[in-house]
Amino acid sequence: MGVVVQLDSGRDPGELLKPLLALVGPDMDKVNRIILDKAISDVDLIPELAHHLIDSGGKRLRPMLTIAAAKLTGYDGEGHVRLAAAVEFMHTATLLHDDVVDESDTRRGKPTARLLWSNQASVLVGDFLLGQAFRMMVDVGSMAGLRILSNAAAVIAEGEVMQLSAAKNTATTEDEYLSIINAKTAALFSAAAEVGAAIANRPAAEQNALRSYGKNLGIAFQLVDDALDYSGDSARLGKSVGDDFREGKITLPVILSFRRGTEDERAFWKRTLTEGDIRDGDLEHAVALMRRHKAIEATFERARHYGAIARDALEIFPDVGPKRALADVVEFCVSRVH
Amino acid sequence: MGVVVQLDSGRDPGELLKPLLALVGPDMDKVNRIILDKAISDVDLIPELAHHLIDSGGKRLRPMLTIAAAKLTGYDGEGHVRLAAAVEFMHTATLLHDDVVDESDTRRGKPTARLLWSNQASVLVGDFLLGQAFRMMVDVGSMAGLRILSNAAAVIAEGEVMQLSAAKNTATTEDEYLSIINAKTAALFSAAAEVGAAIANRPAAEQNALRSYGKNLGIAFQLVDDALDYSGDSARLGKSVGDDFREGKITLPVILSFRRGTEDERAFWKRTLTEGDIRDGDLEHAVALMRRHKAIEATFERARHYGAIARDALEIFPDVGPKRALADVVEFCVSRVH
Repeated sequence: MGVVVQLDSGRDPGELLKPLLALVGPDMDKVNRIILDKAISDVDLIPELAHHLIDSGGKRLRPMLTIAAAKLTGYDGEGHVRLAAAVEFMHTATLLHDDVVDESDTRRGKPTARLLWSNQASVLVGDFLLGQAFRMMVDVGSMAGLRILSNAAAVIAEGEVMQLSAAKNTATTEDEYLSIINAKTAALFSAAAEVGAAIANRPAAEQNALRSYGKNLGIAFQLVDDALDYSGDSARLGKSVGDDFREGKITLPVILSFRRGTEDERAFWKRTLTEGDIRDGDLEHAVALMRRHKAIEATFERARHYGAIARDALEIFPDVGPKRALADVVEFCVSRVH
Repeated sequence: MGVVVQLDSGRDPGELLKPLLALVGPDMDKVNRIILDKAISDVDLIPELAHHLIDSGGKRLRPMLTIAAAKLTGYDGEGHVRLAAAVEFMHTATLLHDDVVDESDTRRGKPTARLLWSNQASVLVGDFLLGQAFRMMVDVGSMAGLRILSNAAAVIAEGEVMQLSAAKNTATTEDEYLSIINAKTAALFSAAAEVGAAIANRPAAEQNALRSYGKNLGIAFQLVDDALDYSGDSARLGKSVGDDFREGKITLPVILSFRRGTEDERAFWKRTLTEGDIRDGDLEHAVALMRRHKAIEATFERARHYGAIARDALEIFPDVGPKRALADVVEFCVSRVH
């Protein structure tokens, strides 16, 4: 039940991350060394649990944005490496807490840390990683960087609480949903890109451009993620189709199907997502309703809209390698069916 | 079953906090306003849950240490107020996560936030408050302050994980226990006092003195807390005698009773704390064993030892009001039977 996404450029999505990977490769080796170094503690449980997630094969897209933004804005110091590692630790801490909040059993195709250790350990190791992230930012010594990332930390948590408050509410509007993903996902993408320019002491226009790029990329990324949860290829995604459905998450494909649906269909969404009464065949029925109302397609379309804004945000920069690599990331994210 | 604590000075413990309260009163009004201001969010759940804890009548001892330390070191700016609020938010975030980790049902005589809302909300609002704390530190703009408090954030989480790893293990040594409370409690007391001097740009000797004062005060405070859990007056403490026992927490009164006990007694501690098999009359038996081995008295004695170190740490300062107020805090903490 794959969805065919038309790439504007007709390029192979698998190729789209290559310019970024080549650009940030050597610096990302340093980032990865710092990540290993800062996950160390005399308390054995900390590195054990942290490594479970660190080694689980995430793309490290967010720290790559920091490195690429620093390159785009001509930064020639070493601080971007540590800030990138801090960004990844913030992300890892969020994932640990997310899995506790969502009571998730799998992440990236592996059992979650909360399942292997405990909710308690996941909460506390998340706190530790967040503390380590701030230590690294302090080591870099950029007050601008600290401001951007501490803002993001508070906004992300605010977004997660917002999501919790909206949980299981099928009447959530698209606007409310956008506020949630803006805070819980786009804020870190945005901060990750913006700090790259902030540390380079670039003019406000460049910093704003990268903030806008990151924010819109993050929204597009989350929209595609939510669409894939109902349409993707489980083996490649490392997550099962229907995870969001089983957890009663209200995402855009649901919001659109609910709004565009009949009274009977709305009753179905309420029974399954609000009341959590999920029976055999319900996931298939949910996907069928989404197809009927073109809700997955519309979600991908919305994603392309934000992707276009992200690309345009970069237009103030000259046409150099880092700019092209960052533009390709947008295309990668909106075409990530694979 | 009160314990009589001999005050070296013979002064009324109720009077001991008065010099501190008088010293920090006007600044603490500002701290309290900032706390209210920074607990605001468009997401209703955040201020509701945060206020439950903020309004619950904690003493705000930690931010008072920051204010008093700033006064002792002659700081004449306004940054100490925001740092003090950040310290209190760090503490509040820790309490929210602690109650989730310990599965606690009451705190300060009221149902815990996790019970009234949910574990999920408590985790996320804790994250939000920690994010707000870092935002406030950034607003102050003191890199030294940020370094001290971000260090503390990571160390506190490390201590909590350490405590989780030692949970229910009656063979925990006094040294291991000290490492735990040093990290989970003393680190924030220490940081709270130290930032007061750091922001005043005082010589390292003064900053070190306040760090040592805070650390040893924090250890004494936690020891007394642990002793009171088996000997205090529930109504005044706002916590029930025996909470730690019911949660299987390994604290110094238990460690000493276990070490000093017979084989039969050790079997009792293992049954109740390690296996969680607690029957009618077990709490009374536990307290009787502690009395037999003078474990509560010894815990108070240990607290007085660390209290003495805290007082001596202040000796490099001239005999001014703030110094006397901080010395009285030590005596208050070690005599807090009331």
